Amino acid sequence: MSFRPDPVQPANDDARTTVRALLALGHAALAWQDPDTGAPGISRIAFARDPEAGLLTLVSGLAPHFRALRDRPDCALMLGEVGDKGDPLTHPRLMIRARAGFVAPDAPERPALRDRWLQRNPKAAIYIDLPDFAFVRLTPVSALLNGGFARAFHVAPEDL
Amino acid sequence: MSFRPDPVQPANDDARTTVRALLALGHAALAWQDPDTGAPGISRIAFARDPEAGLLTLVSGLAPHFRALRDRPDCALMLGEVGDKGDPLTHPRLMIRARAGFVAPDAPERPALRDRWLQRNPKAAIYIDLPDFAFVRLTPVSALLNGGFARAFHVAPEDL
Repeated sequence: MSFRPDPVQPANDDARTTVRALLALGHAALAWQDPDTGAPGISRIAFARDPEAGLLTLVSGLAPHFRALRDRPDCALMLGEVGDKGDPLTHPRLMIRARAGFVAPDAPERPALRDRWLQRNPKAAIYIDLPDFAFVRLTPVSALLNGGFARAFHVAPEDL
Repeated sequence: MSFRPDPVQPANDDARTTVRALLALGHAALAWQDPDTGAPGISRIAFARDPEAGLLTLVSGLAPHFRALRDRPDCALMLGEVGDKGDPLTHPRLMIRARAGFVAPDAPERPALRDRWLQRNPKAAIYIDLPDFAFVRLTPVSALLNGGFARAFHVAPEDL
């Protein structure tokens, strides 16, 4: 039996600082499964780390991932911008495997969650209360920070 | 039976111009399926639209999507940068459903493909010939351009 060391290290303080910066971004890429075929789909989503509800997005009923997340809640998100310079693969990004859970329109926590979302995204006032929009919690299962070649770290869900 | 019109329009000339600009980007987000569980995974990938081979990436054997693409070739990619200003969801992005196919190390087309990749990414010379790196073709199945709210277009695979 051959032994191959895990190339991914446990997160250290530097890695956790990078994770916090990435979680402050307002958008992410979301990987989901087609509810009919199971094939992978991908979307850009609005994102926030809410202090009470955790990782959160707001989804339109017209978006293809709306029904996907409702029918097949396993998903994955990636946070991170590519800067102007250098190899795009050297810029840090955080990949999170998660399970989606819709927040009901009459959930007791929704009003506070809605207010905090609008503080961060005032322009969302135009559509936030439309009947086909819903908040979706993205509960993390596992996470990986990639800070460039040979700089990968496991991040515990409780550190998100 | 209720009739709901498709909110996505066929691509026009403006849309095709945006598509060409997005295909010139050097990186993408890739959605794939975990080969063991089928759960969605996501990665940042190096990307190029090669004039002969079409949509292309170069993957390390250490990347989690290497085995995923080999075992389950259905995938989806997203191209597009989020600018500094405004709502991130108003910036254009192109979503492509694709099937992955590995280019064999001894494939007759590989030397020309490798040369063109290095012209665009000279720094890849450090790793391009390592034995666990492989070129992967991403053959498009369907595509959607989202240019912001209510500006979505179907893009034919032959327009990619």
